[in-house]
Amino acid sequence: MKISIIGVGLIGGSLALSLRKAMPVNKIFGVDTNSGNLSKALHLGIIDATSELDTAITDSDLIILTVPVNSIQELLPSILDQIKKNQVVMEMGSTQHEILESIQDHPNRGRLVAVHPMAGTEYSGPEAAVDDLFTEKNMVFCDIVQTDPDAFEIAESICEALKMKPVFMNAKEHDLHTAYVSHISHITSFALALTVLEKEKSQGRIFELAGGGFASTVRLAKSSPEMWVPIFKQNKNNVLEVLEEHIRQLQRMHDVLEEEDYGTLFKLIKQSNKIKRIIK
Amino acid sequence: MKISIIGVGLIGGSLALSLRKAMPVNKIFGVDTNSGNLSKALHLGIIDATSELDTAITDSDLIILTVPVNSIQELLPSILDQIKKNQVVMEMGSTQHEILESIQDHPNRGRLVAVHPMAGTEYSGPEAAVDDLFTEKNMVFCDIVQTDPDAFEIAESICEALKMKPVFMNAKEHDLHTAYVSHISHITSFALALTVLEKEKSQGRIFELAGGGFASTVRLAKSSPEMWVPIFKQNKNNVLEVLEEHIRQLQRMHDVLEEEDYGTLFKLIKQSNKIKRIIK
Repeated sequence: MKISIIGVGLIGGSLALSLRKAMPVNKIFGVDTNSGNLSKALHLGIIDATSELDTAITDSDLIILTVPVNSIQELLPSILDQIKKNQVVMEMGSTQHEILESIQDHPNRGRLVAVHPMAGTEYSGPEAAVDDLFTEKNMVFCDIVQTDPDAFEIAESICEALKMKPVFMNAKEHDLHTAYVSHISHITSFALALTVLEKEKSQGRIFELAGGGFASTVRLAKSSPEMWVPIFKQNKNNVLEVLEEHIRQLQRMHDVLEEEDYGTLFKLIKQSNKIKRIIK
Repeated sequence: MKISIIGVGLIGGSLALSLRKAMPVNKIFGVDTNSGNLSKALHLGIIDATSELDTAITDSDLIILTVPVNSIQELLPSILDQIKKNQVVMEMGSTQHEILESIQDHPNRGRLVAVHPMAGTEYSGPEAAVDDLFTEKNMVFCDIVQTDPDAFEIAESICEALKMKPVFMNAKEHDLHTAYVSHISHITSFALALTVLEKEKSQGRIFELAGGGFASTVRLAKSSPEMWVPIFKQNKNNVLEVLEEHIRQLQRMHDVLEEEDYGTLFKLIKQSNKIKRIIK
């Protein structure tokens, strides 16, 4: 199988390394508008060859899009225009509804498999790629009824080879859930970093006290705006909804503390401890 | 040296294990109002013997308080009443100003060393204790000018044996800084857990999508209310101040997204990325 990976950053690079380890692959082409990333990916042995987009589309059995979600949306119509009926396209967007809606009537819609691998780190670029990023993680397949069975089978075999667990959702449901378990975590981290950086200007010694708890809650604030602004844009309504709910929860803790109602504060914290049954 | 540890939870237990590994210790007594924790600590070899508080005070060269901050404040006056001039007391509170203010005129104030080891995990109890919790972490000494030089020397030698880095602050400065780099991280985690748990009631499948980013930002929400309510109570004004600033930052991100001002959103995220120079 010849595979093209459009976007050789953390996800695309890790995918190339993982596929190479997990299954027989004839050749992996890398495509990227960032020529620095492209030559790094080649140099690191992540891809076998660099390619222009058009050539990659013509020459590959499988085309995988691992660029930011705005670029997926831009590129997808013309890629679907160009492919033949035996080719498969996978897009790995962190948001799905707007992307899938924009190509829903395309005659080659069935050749597209929409997935979101629930894996990532706060780092970006091919130098951050690792060959076990996806192991044991969930792979969310979106609106899979609209994908041709043979195209799904190829994506499913990749999912299995990467030791990922398949999960099925419709795109709307996916976008709402990711707002709650991924997008809001990033927003709180960005805002927490801004809060503390603001204070640091007047209180230079503040970071002598930064321990593991602080590092853990702000590490996502290292994530790139190039990736995240398009996600927030495409998932605006869900993100606003969860952000409003989160501000309400913070305001409630604020008010309870201000009123010195420590009994209720205790109950709120005890209730939040139930998160133990979700995360290890 | 005979040492008594009052409170054999995560911090007290880890301290006992670390001290035993790092320096010659004749005997470590454990004191705890929770008899279950006490027998676990004995069974796990963390302490050599259990003891009543009064006996522990009489029989020890060094008495270390690793109980929640409200209990430190309650116990400290009578402990200082009972000790002799050759004994040393260390308290390891996460807040310091209110505790130190309440005993500032005590005739044995000089025998007290007020420290805050910047180490911890979201777990509690002696079973969570580890012998390397403090290695390479900061140990904050508060209001050290009020401590007798010989008492400070003993605390300093412990700090060195544990391979910790000493940092010196006055108690007020300490409480302000910890509000920014520790207490707010816990509040956001508690509130984030509440936000998501609330949503889960109506959206059962939400956690199929929870990845590493989510786990990282909510892991502190596993922390116990028994420890944290007294911290928020003692550091109320600082915590309210930082919480108000954090809500302002979140509201700003909300408004910018609602207004579809993606240029400003990009700039805010880019600015928050500067946290990279603080955390690895």
